[in-house]
Amino acid sequence: MSAVGGVPGLDGAEARQLVRAVSPTDGTPSQVDERVARAGWSGITEPGDRIAGALVERLGAAPALAAVFAGPSPAELGELFGTDAPTAKELEEALARWKPRLHGEPVLRSLAQAARWGARLLIPGDAAWPVGVDDLGPHAPIALWLRGNEHALASTARSVALVGARAATGYGEHVAMEAAAGLVERGFTVVSGAAYGIDGMAHRAALAGSGTTVAFLAGGVDRFYPSGHDALLARIADVGAVVSELPCGAAPTRWRFLQRNRLIAAASSAVVVVEAGLRSGSLNTAHHAASLGRPIGAVPGPVTSAASAGCHRLLREAMATCVTSAREMAELVEDEESVEISRDDMDPEAVRVLDALSTRSPRAVDDIAARAGLGVQPVMAVLGALALDGRVAENERGWVTRR
Amino acid sequence: MSAVGGVPGLDGAEARQLVRAVSPTDGTPSQVDERVARAGWSGITEPGDRIAGALVERLGAAPALAAVFAGPSPAELGELFGTDAPTAKELEEALARWKPRLHGEPVLRSLAQAARWGARLLIPGDAAWPVGVDDLGPHAPIALWLRGNEHALASTARSVALVGARAATGYGEHVAMEAAAGLVERGFTVVSGAAYGIDGMAHRAALAGSGTTVAFLAGGVDRFYPSGHDALLARIADVGAVVSELPCGAAPTRWRFLQRNRLIAAASSAVVVVEAGLRSGSLNTAHHAASLGRPIGAVPGPVTSAASAGCHRLLREAMATCVTSAREMAELVEDEESVEISRDDMDPEAVRVLDALSTRSPRAVDDIAARAGLGVQPVMAVLGALALDGRVAENERGWVTRR
Repeated sequence: MSAVGGVPGLDGAEARQLVRAVSPTDGTPSQVDERVARAGWSGITEPGDRIAGALVERLGAAPALAAVFAGPSPAELGELFGTDAPTAKELEEALARWKPRLHGEPVLRSLAQAARWGARLLIPGDAAWPVGVDDLGPHAPIALWLRGNEHALASTARSVALVGARAATGYGEHVAMEAAAGLVERGFTVVSGAAYGIDGMAHRAALAGSGTTVAFLAGGVDRFYPSGHDALLARIADVGAVVSELPCGAAPTRWRFLQRNRLIAAASSAVVVVEAGLRSGSLNTAHHAASLGRPIGAVPGPVTSAASAGCHRLLREAMATCVTSAREMAELVEDEESVEISRDDMDPEAVRVLDALSTRSPRAVDDIAARAGLGVQPVMAVLGALALDGRVAENERGWVTRR
Repeated sequence: MSAVGGVPGLDGAEARQLVRAVSPTDGTPSQVDERVARAGWSGITEPGDRIAGALVERLGAAPALAAVFAGPSPAELGELFGTDAPTAKELEEALARWKPRLHGEPVLRSLAQAARWGARLLIPGDAAWPVGVDDLGPHAPIALWLRGNEHALASTARSVALVGARAATGYGEHVAMEAAAGLVERGFTVVSGAAYGIDGMAHRAALAGSGTTVAFLAGGVDRFYPSGHDALLARIADVGAVVSELPCGAAPTRWRFLQRNRLIAAASSAVVVVEAGLRSGSLNTAHHAASLGRPIGAVPGPVTSAASAGCHRLLREAMATCVTSAREMAELVEDEESVEISRDDMDPEAVRVLDALSTRSPRAVDDIAARAGLGVQPVMAVLGALALDGRVAENERGWVTRR
């Protein structure tokens, strides 16, 4: 019991048994406890909790949970981080927001609920874990809950997110349908958020094309949302995957929708906004994609249609590439993949710097220098030259390779 | 007579009298002869003749014309260029293409025809000369022929070219109309090519808004083309300007249409492609604008419309900014104008380099160094830093400032 944190209300034996029911059964006891603790963390924190993510990363989920249940002061919590400690204010706020949820019963309830619905608990390193979400760093999900096919979730390694307005027009739904059909034909998994409008059409057309589709939800996978998409989500769970970082029983909230959008952006190889008004949540998904260095496409539409105004803004601000067909959407990903090519005749240092860069994960200069086995000064010079050629770009999180 | 070249069939007295009828009357005799000679050159060369442009620039139009009428060998012609001589092959080809047209009668005919139609002959330096065309360098027009209002032509200094497909859709014509109306309301002159479809709608809406509009033709201004736009062109000539670099009597040809497009791009402050299929000539205009460093806008449309495919390609290739309203089209120009701003806190050398750059005319590093009064090395360093900030860009013709 102590291994999962001496959590009030959390019967270790019962928790371990439930976890074995919803996870791979071949884990060592400490691996099982890690799963129990990650299930616990997924109920304690709101999605994207940077302090929780960093603590779990540093200590492991079970020791981190035990440490937090021990009721540390902010200073004591800070000591666990060593030299990279958050500020005293951040630590205090983190403890304050976790405290009301430091109970074991909800963990057991969500595990029991997951078992009842046949949901699976996934943690980093599991075969089905979508590797893209690790690019979120301390904002990465601590655990994911899945209803459906593990292979479908793993297939997001080659996927396009089709997102857009709930208030879609006939034009937008037509484009979403053609896009999803063409993408699954090309072997891409279609990722979306199961909302009305563009999302729903994207999932439906992917299913109709016998393709793979994955829906990320803002609440627990035991409660399909929106309820009008119950049947659609049941079909997705049947042949694809319905995924959430919230445990069973959790309701969708505005914050969780926004954080769900970050998961869609992180799990997908590219994000395409099919149709979006100026206030559409899909623009939030596009912004998450931008901060992760994911390629972004936007589908243009009539300038007379308010439902395309968000897409036009993305194009106008040069945040997105104009995409008009499934082929062009596929090229967003394939161009990324072919960045490796055409390095002939290139300066050897430039080749090593490019090898040290990712199209997805922005990296700091010293990180790049370490990966490339070069000094910081030559790396900066090479980055400058490559930036002039348009081969690399710097954003607020570091350097990435460009298409 | 010798001053205008000893041209067979060209009566100097008659030519000078005709030129006085179609030009400012206050010129000195040699200025009048320069005009006669430019009128002559405009009939001898096809638009954009680089060798003719360079020769006229070097010797003056009248001495250049005299030299060519003297029947030089390619080597003799080359000597006139000094160290910047074209290749022997280029000189030979130039003489070969000019030779069949070395007659004076057509010059007199086109001058007489211009006088009959009330057309004016403009040469560089005239008040109404559209300064932007000088950015074409040796490809700049040697003379322009104008029917209409000289102030209208001069007003292209603050103008937007609205161009697009002849085979426009109702959507495209609607957008062109709104765009032209909004632009003239903001004090911009609307430039276009008087073709059916987008061009015609742009001119019409500018006129309807009591704005200024300028049409560039691919043939002489005495023969309006297309003939179905006779009445429209007459109205443009009435309150705006109808302009060509071809003398009266010249028929439009495919080459002249393409070169007319370069004039539209050069004379305008920005080019907006409203609607264009993949083979639309308006994409040629956009490419001319790109090589001149002019801002380019493209209006998106439904991806299901072939008439917008050219616009989407421009957006996709990041050659154009997505523009959805007259306001955004105006911003293409105004953002250029405001590049001057926000130089506070900037390195003094960077300020001087920016001052030495143009948004329109690409400049070589040594030219920039000379203008800025800085060494070549510091200029290159500053350009590199400014390029990383996205404030300057290099194209094949040199460096320009960006919006």
